[in-house]
Amino acid sequence: MGKILRVNMSELTVRYEDLPERYLLFGGRALTSALVADEVPPGAHALGENNKLVIAPGLLSGTTAPCSGRLSVGAKSPLTGTIKESNAGGITAQKLASLDIRAIVVEGRPTGEGFHLLVIDENKAELVPAGNLAGMGCYQLNEELWKRYGTKSGVISIGPAGEMRMVLAGVSTNDGEGHPGRYAGRGGLGAVMGAKGLKAIVVRTDKTFDVPVKDREKFKEAARKLAQAIAEHPVTNSALPTYGTAVLINILNEAGGLPTRNFSSGRFEAAARCSGEALAELVQQRGGKGRTGHACHPGCVIRCSNVIPDEKGEVLCAPVEYESTWALGPNCGIADLDQIAMLNRLCNDVGLDTIETGVTLGVLMEAGVLAFGDGEAAINLLDREVRNGTPLGRILGGGAAAAGRLFGLTRVPTVKGQGLPAYDPRAVKGIGVTYATSTMGGDHTAGYAVAANILKVGGFVDPLSPAGQVELSRNLQIATAAVDATGLCLFTAFPLLDIDYALPSVVDMINAQYGVNLTVEDVVNYGKEILKTERVFNEAAGFTKAHDRLPEYMKYEKLAPHGVTFDVPDKELDEVFNF
Amino acid sequence: MGKILRVNMSELTVRYEDLPERYLLFGGRALTSALVADEVPPGAHALGENNKLVIAPGLLSGTTAPCSGRLSVGAKSPLTGTIKESNAGGITAQKLASLDIRAIVVEGRPTGEGFHLLVIDENKAELVPAGNLAGMGCYQLNEELWKRYGTKSGVISIGPAGEMRMVLAGVSTNDGEGHPGRYAGRGGLGAVMGAKGLKAIVVRTDKTFDVPVKDREKFKEAARKLAQAIAEHPVTNSALPTYGTAVLINILNEAGGLPTRNFSSGRFEAAARCSGEALAELVQQRGGKGRTGHACHPGCVIRCSNVIPDEKGEVLCAPVEYESTWALGPNCGIADLDQIAMLNRLCNDVGLDTIETGVTLGVLMEAGVLAFGDGEAAINLLDREVRNGTPLGRILGGGAAAAGRLFGLTRVPTVKGQGLPAYDPRAVKGIGVTYATSTMGGDHTAGYAVAANILKVGGFVDPLSPAGQVELSRNLQIATAAVDATGLCLFTAFPLLDIDYALPSVVDMINAQYGVNLTVEDVVNYGKEILKTERVFNEAAGFTKAHDRLPEYMKYEKLAPHGVTFDVPDKELDEVFNF
Repeated sequence: MGKILRVNMSELTVRYEDLPERYLLFGGRALTSALVADEVPPGAHALGENNKLVIAPGLLSGTTAPCSGRLSVGAKSPLTGTIKESNAGGITAQKLASLDIRAIVVEGRPTGEGFHLLVIDENKAELVPAGNLAGMGCYQLNEELWKRYGTKSGVISIGPAGEMRMVLAGVSTNDGEGHPGRYAGRGGLGAVMGAKGLKAIVVRTDKTFDVPVKDREKFKEAARKLAQAIAEHPVTNSALPTYGTAVLINILNEAGGLPTRNFSSGRFEAAARCSGEALAELVQQRGGKGRTGHACHPGCVIRCSNVIPDEKGEVLCAPVEYESTWALGPNCGIADLDQIAMLNRLCNDVGLDTIETGVTLGVLMEAGVLAFGDGEAAINLLDREVRNGTPLGRILGGGAAAAGRLFGLTRVPTVKGQGLPAYDPRAVKGIGVTYATSTMGGDHTAGYAVAANILKVGGFVDPLSPAGQVELSRNLQIATAAVDATGLCLFTAFPLLDIDYALPSVVDMINAQYGVNLTVEDVVNYGKEILKTERVFNEAAGFTKAHDRLPEYMKYEKLAPHGVTFDVPDKELDEVFNF
Repeated sequence: MGKILRVNMSELTVRYEDLPERYLLFGGRALTSALVADEVPPGAHALGENNKLVIAPGLLSGTTAPCSGRLSVGAKSPLTGTIKESNAGGITAQKLASLDIRAIVVEGRPTGEGFHLLVIDENKAELVPAGNLAGMGCYQLNEELWKRYGTKSGVISIGPAGEMRMVLAGVSTNDGEGHPGRYAGRGGLGAVMGAKGLKAIVVRTDKTFDVPVKDREKFKEAARKLAQAIAEHPVTNSALPTYGTAVLINILNEAGGLPTRNFSSGRFEAAARCSGEALAELVQQRGGKGRTGHACHPGCVIRCSNVIPDEKGEVLCAPVEYESTWALGPNCGIADLDQIAMLNRLCNDVGLDTIETGVTLGVLMEAGVLAFGDGEAAINLLDREVRNGTPLGRILGGGAAAAGRLFGLTRVPTVKGQGLPAYDPRAVKGIGVTYATSTMGGDHTAGYAVAANILKVGGFVDPLSPAGQVELSRNLQIATAAVDATGLCLFTAFPLLDIDYALPSVVDMINAQYGVNLTVEDVVNYGKEILKTERVFNEAAGFTKAHDRLPEYMKYEKLAPHGVTFDVPDKELDEVFNF
């Protein structure tokens, strides 16, 4: 039936509760959002005692469903003020699910100083003082924790940025090699964890695929079908495993939608130097521990991830994804892959969301604090200023919207206080609709219209025209909310959108596992209900249609090379949530 | 009939327009808010080309009405995101009115670098490059401008903070001695002026009381009555002129409502050292150019202002008001009057709102950036860090809400992003209602419930009880909006509330000046209409009842010495604007 593990940081107590009946079919984002909506007052300060950090594996996590190991982390976001869910790969979602833990709810606020670890094993959970682990970067921390608790342990942790409650701090989870690079990065959830005084959660179990399934035969058949669909689709069977997600650098650059130097152009003259192709070549040349086609969690069959080696073949950073490459690269005018990988590693170590970090760096570069293209200055900023919490480090740690405010800029690419990701909404208008209207603030994963705008997956909608973008984004936002509940990787959406037997196979798996009889339509409604829950929370927290807008300058500042502005009418944006 | 002087900073053009008929009876805040509401898109970036800075004398400014020389400055605020009006004394309102200028509207945005001066004389207005005046502190700037343009010139200017578009930058106006200490401080309007590339406005005329009045006899009689009411009321005839507004330090301390060390207590153990009484004694002891009973603008008969001398009797700061004393003193744990006066002088020179500066300093002290009570560190912070725009200076310049965000604090005393002034809302609950619900963000002048809560003016409402506060604040907010339209000093409200012939005398003056027949009821409706205009703008800009709230911690963190929280129910707060 499942348990909720409730951790009270005011009283330093831990207790298991039965999952309430009404949450039976809630997993991942559906469960984090429901728990936040049910238990957190919308007016709560995100870093105060009344906010709660909720961590939940997906509905299918811990089974043999392919690519089902995503871990959702939710709370009221200190970055956006909205409800928030961010999810990551890594090895922990499946371990939690295998221990029958459907959600960890961290609540209250420590009265004293100091950080704790939450250590969960197969029989119990307890809080122990973090001692000298506090202040540690995530690399060393993960090494220490594996020494103490074994190399099969799942680790969810924060770096110094989270401890300092910086609103661009993310929540790290480890991969099978113990790298802390799988991040629930967005929305400052690491700051919430820091405010709770929790340095890390350690899940001590060898189990990975041990969740009971009611109808094993039916499940197996459905899982096989989904795996087949993934293997059939050209994006998931070839482009992603070969070049990783950074294959998008050249594609977006070609489309004129690669935001360059703080969104001042849609094309980066040095894009080829930091493309997925260049990255794959670097991995091949250097060899050693480097690899492409790496899996972000057990059971992943897409394997779009990578391990970037340094010149000696040692691990420099694992992984370097498209959005991180873009944020720390083209958006900062940086094309050097070693610098980009080092910046990414520093984000992983200090505990920062790579996207928000890159967008903030871009804003600071626009402000003249450091020069566009100056990778060494950016490295220094992360490694020294942010890690040590200097005034300049605090400015970066406050995110792009705050940096823009502090320096009095108008070209500040944020929505609801969150930095926009790697697709300029003027040249990829469908994603612009998602940025503007998502319940999560500027977020590409909430409704990845890039699929139809650029990749021609799920049909084609001209990225430069305002027509059809609202419907596209709406449908994707609904579908995504449902996918985010399952623990499935968002990239399964490519076959789900294009291959007709794929979506029924997911529904069949849920039915087989839980002994229910959902239809495809039920799953669509399920996505709608998740969004409604989130919208109601956001409205009570003070969000209106006035916040469902891109930054004003994108309406009048033309983006090269196409000379486009964002021209989806406000009135149409207000129709996204018309269901 | 009156003119609007329209200044386009994109094109560097200046033109006079006739005041549209519908604005005939709009002055001060009524006119700034109407023009902003009519001409600025609510979604505009406050520092972008679509915001407008509006400067307007009051309806009665430039006449012999006592205390009628307030100047309103309005825009969409970069600090709060709301519509904003902030007003100040000084010599300029009456000069503009005497030149038949009902409003200056500064619009657009310069395409190049560099600042301009707007020079207005009796025949024309023109933009001239600011040259080496850019970057100058307001003291030196005002000296230079008087050298160039004569010592009768009214000067509206910004300091380096405004040029750097810091959101706690205010707009300075000069007094009759050329001190730049009369500030339209709140809401970051100096940053709007800075974003427009306007360093100063110089109004070159000797005229002060030259506005034509239709019925001079009737006007004279009504003005005499208002002067008599001011002379009769104990607050305006004695307490204010003798000790200045800082008389409130001891009073609020006694009431347990003097926010101390970032609102962590309502009583400051060293309050007596920085009280109005101590200030008056210092002025008397040191003599020289120091004085109490100083007027902030020509025609003021209350004379609550002061000039604080240094040890040699030279001018240290003019004036040092209650809210500034509190912000830079008790709220920072500082009791030394010389340090407080120096901090105030630095705010005037660098171009900062004293209240927002003090609230931000308090937050930074809570964050441990500097120690509570360390006046020298605070002086250094303003004089070096802010003036030079260092990272730490930019943090201070971002205001209290941003500082709280950057350091991950929950005890951040702001509403709608604006720092709360000198009255703790837990111990003075009427002002808490005003802070929460005002169209201007946390602002005491928008509905000064301290009058009835503490001073027993306009009746008495127990400051520690939630009962009656909403009605009190509502009525005061309506009355204040009307007063703010007239150019009358808000302190005329003391006799207006208590002496029955006072308010009719104001209505009579308006009728006599403009040849109209308003009733007292019309004036009340006028106040309501101003508030409605502002609310409609704010709603379109994304504000809801969720924003009409005090910081969450004030609901559960008890304030010493009375052990009180803010317990006016949310539902009642939502009834403030029920008209």
